[in-house]
Amino acid sequence: MKKLINDPEQVVNETLEGFLAAYGDRIARVGDTGGLVLREKKDKVALVIGGGSGHEPMFSMFVGDGLADASISGHIFTSPDPYSIIETATAADAGRGVLFVYGNYAGDNLNFEMASEMLTMSGTPNRIVRVWDDVASAPKERTEDRRGIAGDLFVVKVAGAATAAGLDLDEAVRVTEKARDNTFSIGVALSGGTIPGAAAPAFTLPEDEIEFGLGIHGEPGIRRAKLLPADEIVEELFSLILADSGIKAGDRVCTLVNGLGSTTLSELYIMNRKLRQLLDGAGIAVHDMVVGSFVTCQEMAGASVTLMRLDEELMGYYDAPADSPYYRK
Amino acid sequence: MKKLINDPEQVVNETLEGFLAAYGDRIARVGDTGGLVLREKKDKVALVIGGGSGHEPMFSMFVGDGLADASISGHIFTSPDPYSIIETATAADAGRGVLFVYGNYAGDNLNFEMASEMLTMSGTPNRIVRVWDDVASAPKERTEDRRGIAGDLFVVKVAGAATAAGLDLDEAVRVTEKARDNTFSIGVALSGGTIPGAAAPAFTLPEDEIEFGLGIHGEPGIRRAKLLPADEIVEELFSLILADSGIKAGDRVCTLVNGLGSTTLSELYIMNRKLRQLLDGAGIAVHDMVVGSFVTCQEMAGASVTLMRLDEELMGYYDAPADSPYYRK
Repeated sequence: MKKLINDPEQVVNETLEGFLAAYGDRIARVGDTGGLVLREKKDKVALVIGGGSGHEPMFSMFVGDGLADASISGHIFTSPDPYSIIETATAADAGRGVLFVYGNYAGDNLNFEMASEMLTMSGTPNRIVRVWDDVASAPKERTEDRRGIAGDLFVVKVAGAATAAGLDLDEAVRVTEKARDNTFSIGVALSGGTIPGAAAPAFTLPEDEIEFGLGIHGEPGIRRAKLLPADEIVEELFSLILADSGIKAGDRVCTLVNGLGSTTLSELYIMNRKLRQLLDGAGIAVHDMVVGSFVTCQEMAGASVTLMRLDEELMGYYDAPADSPYYRK
Repeated sequence: MKKLINDPEQVVNETLEGFLAAYGDRIARVGDTGGLVLREKKDKVALVIGGGSGHEPMFSMFVGDGLADASISGHIFTSPDPYSIIETATAADAGRGVLFVYGNYAGDNLNFEMASEMLTMSGTPNRIVRVWDDVASAPKERTEDRRGIAGDLFVVKVAGAATAAGLDLDEAVRVTEKARDNTFSIGVALSGGTIPGAAAPAFTLPEDEIEFGLGIHGEPGIRRAKLLPADEIVEELFSLILADSGIKAGDRVCTLVNGLGSTTLSELYIMNRKLRQLLDGAGIAVHDMVVGSFVTCQEMAGASVTLMRLDEELMGYYDAPADSPYYRK
């Protein structure tokens, strides 16, 4: 697998260095960790996001005003270690406490929770909100076993706005959990991505097959099918989300069609076209539609659909200004 | 080749429909053409950009304030026809004339020039600026034979700002040509992209080879090589641009590392890291660095490097605000 890299071991480090070559005026590296932090510290709860690398622009490239105050990246598909998390959170902390938001994976849970406990013991108030938007990854009764995928974007957006609005830590957690509990995603994969330095993709699919519900690290999905027209795929994704979420006529949503890496904007908009038709047909009000590759899995082909149900409070935070290199509002 | 599409013949139409499902509040379709136009007509020279589809987000998704007033898209890798160009330009025209900016390809030249002549005959003043930033596509003595690639972005940015600033048509052409004449790009390809409905990529490269200078429709480049580390590739691209452009110590530039489709942001930033080192080492001042996939060739793997040399006038237009779905300033 050809990639434009130097040393596979240095991919994360050199990515962050290249990112700071462009944005170093406003974002700084945290020591020699995979942490990035806004240079201008604000008098607010610090929002710290993170997880394994390999999903760029999420997480590291969503540091910005009205979004994350800091991010901490592990190696590719690997949680950051607790000490790097602590160092990054400490760099971001303005004395109002720290809100951690990350995707729900075993390694991340272990390391962020260890960091959280150690920060608490050393007197830094902090809370965790795990994102678990992937409805395909566990049944409804075990929501807390679900993975975090592209819905991370909307939860981080709301958390960034809530902390920027000056909410205290408990209130910021309440709002962020409300965003999380109203965010539902499911994806479809067409082909796998390859970790830098690996000889082959993390998984392969036959040339005429797709897989519904496949995860952003290649975790198994819920159903394989022959390649279908985009409209039929979107219909199935939409039905699965509606059945799971209870989103119904009269509700208001914002939506994300997220590309997993190599799927073109053209394909994502063809999906978005059908999504809009289905939402309009179901009597669900569309507040905003976002289309792009925000949470990727290297050059994996495929896409996910995310719906976030909005009440007045969430809508206010969703609409608040945000300015990071790869997400603005 | 698996793609998330319905009917290959409807890819452009459904892409535009899906785009308007998200942005229809501010952008409208021009009849049943591939044209898009800002709903709010401004009292200024209308900037109309366009070309073949398949390079999204360029051109159609750069319609916005401070950028293009309208875009006209042909089928995949095919110029829009003269009548669609005329209809779109007429929809965008506010009585101050029309500035066309597009990449330098035979089909586009033919059709935009025909449209231009017919508009002139019917009393609509208009001018054309062709972009020819690809230094690999013809020798320096035949600049006008060079192709337009990712440098389109910077030329469109400056043209959008110049027209938004209220310059008349001749002055807007002067500034846009200055931007064009100071913009230099060259790319490297790792693998080809596939047109929707086609069975195979437009071209293939051996699993251990890359090609310098390959065009965004698969046009032949200048040199094949074994896969090299990213740093060595960037060194070669940078040397070629410097030799061609005469950009030197003391000059000031903005830069673009543009992904061609499936190349990850991580790889683009690894390239950007080296680019910054080379610029700093050469004593060239870096005004701004842009990294992303703005001018693509389906899911082609590879990237290009663009430098635009800035004087005070160009810098002012470069820094002016712009707000389109895939480019903001």
